[in-house]
Amino acid sequence: MEVINMYEKCLNMLYERGVGLSDIAQCVIYLQRHHHPEIQEEEIIEVIKNVLKKREVQHAIITGITLDKLAESNQLHDDVLHDILIKDESLYGIDEVLAYGICNLYGSIALTNFGYIDRDKPLIIKTLNEHSHMCHTFLDDIVGAIAAAAASRIAHNA
Amino acid sequence: MEVINMYEKCLNMLYERGVGLSDIAQCVIYLQRHHHPEIQEEEIIEVIKNVLKKREVQHAIITGITLDKLAESNQLHDDVLHDILIKDESLYGIDEVLAYGICNLYGSIALTNFGYIDRDKPLIIKTLNEHSHMCHTFLDDIVGAIAAAAASRIAHNA
Amino acid sequence: MEVINMYEKCLNMLYERGVGLSDIAQCVIYLQRHHHPEIQEEEIIEVIKNVLKKREVQHAIITGITLDKLAESNQLHDDVLHDILIKDESLYGIDEVLAYGICNLYGSIALTNFGYIDRDKPLIIKTLNEHSHMCHTFLDDIVGAIAAAAASRIAHNA
Amino acid sequence: MEVINMYEKCLNMLYERGVGLSDIAQCVIYLQRHHHPEIQEEEIIEVIKNVLKKREVQHAIITGITLDKLAESNQLHDDVLHDILIKDESLYGIDEVLAYGICNLYGSIALTNFGYIDRDKPLIIKTLNEHSHMCHTFLDDIVGAIAAAAASRIAHNA
Repeated sequence: MEVINMYEKCLNMLYERGVGLSDIAQCVIYLQRHHHPEIQEEEIIEVIKNVLKKREVQHAIITGITLDKLAESNQLHDDVLHDILIKDESLYGIDEVLAYGICNLYGSIALTNFGYIDRDKPLIIKTLNEHSHMCHTFLDDIVGAIAAAAASRIAHNA
Repeated sequence: MEVINMYEKCLNMLYERGVGLSDIAQCVIYLQRHHHPEIQEEEIIEVIKNVLKKREVQHAIITGITLDKLAESNQLHDDVLHDILIKDESLYGIDEVLAYGICNLYGSIALTNFGYIDRDKPLIIKTLNEHSHMCHTFLDDIVGAIAAAAASRIAHNA
Repeated sequence: MEVINMYEKCLNMLYERGVGLSDIAQCVIYLQRHHHPEIQEEEIIEVIKNVLKKREVQHAIITGITLDKLAESNQLHDDVLHDILIKDESLYGIDEVLAYGICNLYGSIALTNFGYIDRDKPLIIKTLNEHSHMCHTFLDDIVGAIAAAAASRIAHNA
Repeated sequence: MEVINMYEKCLNMLYERGVGLSDIAQCVIYLQRHHHPEIQEEEIIEVIKNVLKKREVQHAIITGITLDKLAESNQLHDDVLHDILIKDESLYGIDEVLAYGICNLYGSIALTNFGYIDRDKPLIIKTLNEHSHMCHTFLDDIVGAIAAAAASRIAHNA
């Protein structure tokens, strides 16, 4: 029951911040385009849903999005952290640390997939990075990590 | 300049939350009691200071303590995350993820040291855990990670 | 098919090196003694079997045990690595790196459990460490990691 | 003394397997081409040398290259592991686990750099992958990890 509620809460939080399951699925397709070009979005979305049912993934999502929102509304009560998050400073690193917390659960392929998508920043990850009025310092990495985790699961199941 | 200021900011944040360099040094002595019983607090404090000068360590400190303080003052604007942090739910895991972000920089000995001190909860870590009016969900793990990192550095330099 | 065969191969390799499922289960009981004292060995063994069915766990087992055996029979063809493995040098670290590869798949609780058991070295882990004619540099950490992973799974399922 | 000797041993092992400092430097330049296009090879080589002086990096190098050589000469005495290493099976994962052991010491930027270069496989990494008579299952990831670590150090120092 609690797990299901947390799952729905996370889906809602992602959606409210502009990320739908289909956006994440497109990232998975991007990651798998050379290896599994035949895979269908429907199938991928099932894998993504399973990633989102993991408790540690859920905790990363609510923690990261909460920090993004507090930065955006200037309610962190810490000027230094506020500036870092608003600017999405490339040397901050804690956003990636949270993302690795997700990827690690899916093994080494998830980690390399994340590194790749985090440098390339395709699709929704690019959109999130280009928002000028919103702070997505954590969210873009979380979305990349979920996509990388799903791609890893698909590779292992193939 | 920026690095030094961040360093001083972190020292102050730790101090305001009840953690002095000497408290962390006692944890390092605890971790090293069987291996380097002769090591002096003064020497350990120099090692701890060097850990605190690393940018990723500083970012973990200000992020974790900011979350603790926002939880404590009921300003996270997310009920679920608030409840998790106030209760220091053992399955939350993101506090350990941040701590591993610190330990990883110091290699595998730092990680095992952290696991050990996180289960044993000696000294200041115990004190932080027993506070009834404050939230130290992140801080206790951060202190454990800094101590584990310093102990690892001492082991490698011995 | 391949996965099942790899699973049986790993069970056999562990058994030939002196580690039975029941030995690992005792380590899990040790880790869980304060949290789930009521848990039965039978139930734990099912959890351990599931850990051993993960491909990355299997690869860590066959890689680590192969290195142990080659060191033992003086067939590494590298004197420096041979000496390190035979002495189980505490600063080697690669044995823990392989163990973390297992623990990471089970989240942060697995990592802290591993750190704890790796310092305490109870039961079969102690036995492996005390062998004078055999090299168990990798195996003791692998057993600790499997136990830590199983304990984490039990904590999350509780 | 021991550290210096290990450093020289690692340089020699890399060189004997076809990897010079300049090859790794080219990978660093590749990783930094958008961020620090002005950086000189000489300067990069100094950073790489410092990476190679870390004990855990040295241990990863000698362990990985030893496994590659034993696979190549059919002396692993384990058919399953031999087949995996000779084919460089993409789902093996332990080569990446060793690489992450290096990257983790240099923080989250090193990890994303590694993920990127591991997917792109430019320069010497491509050459190593295309060898038909040699086994470089571990070496290509180790070289990528050293380059990613050096690139991360350069980013933090900039």
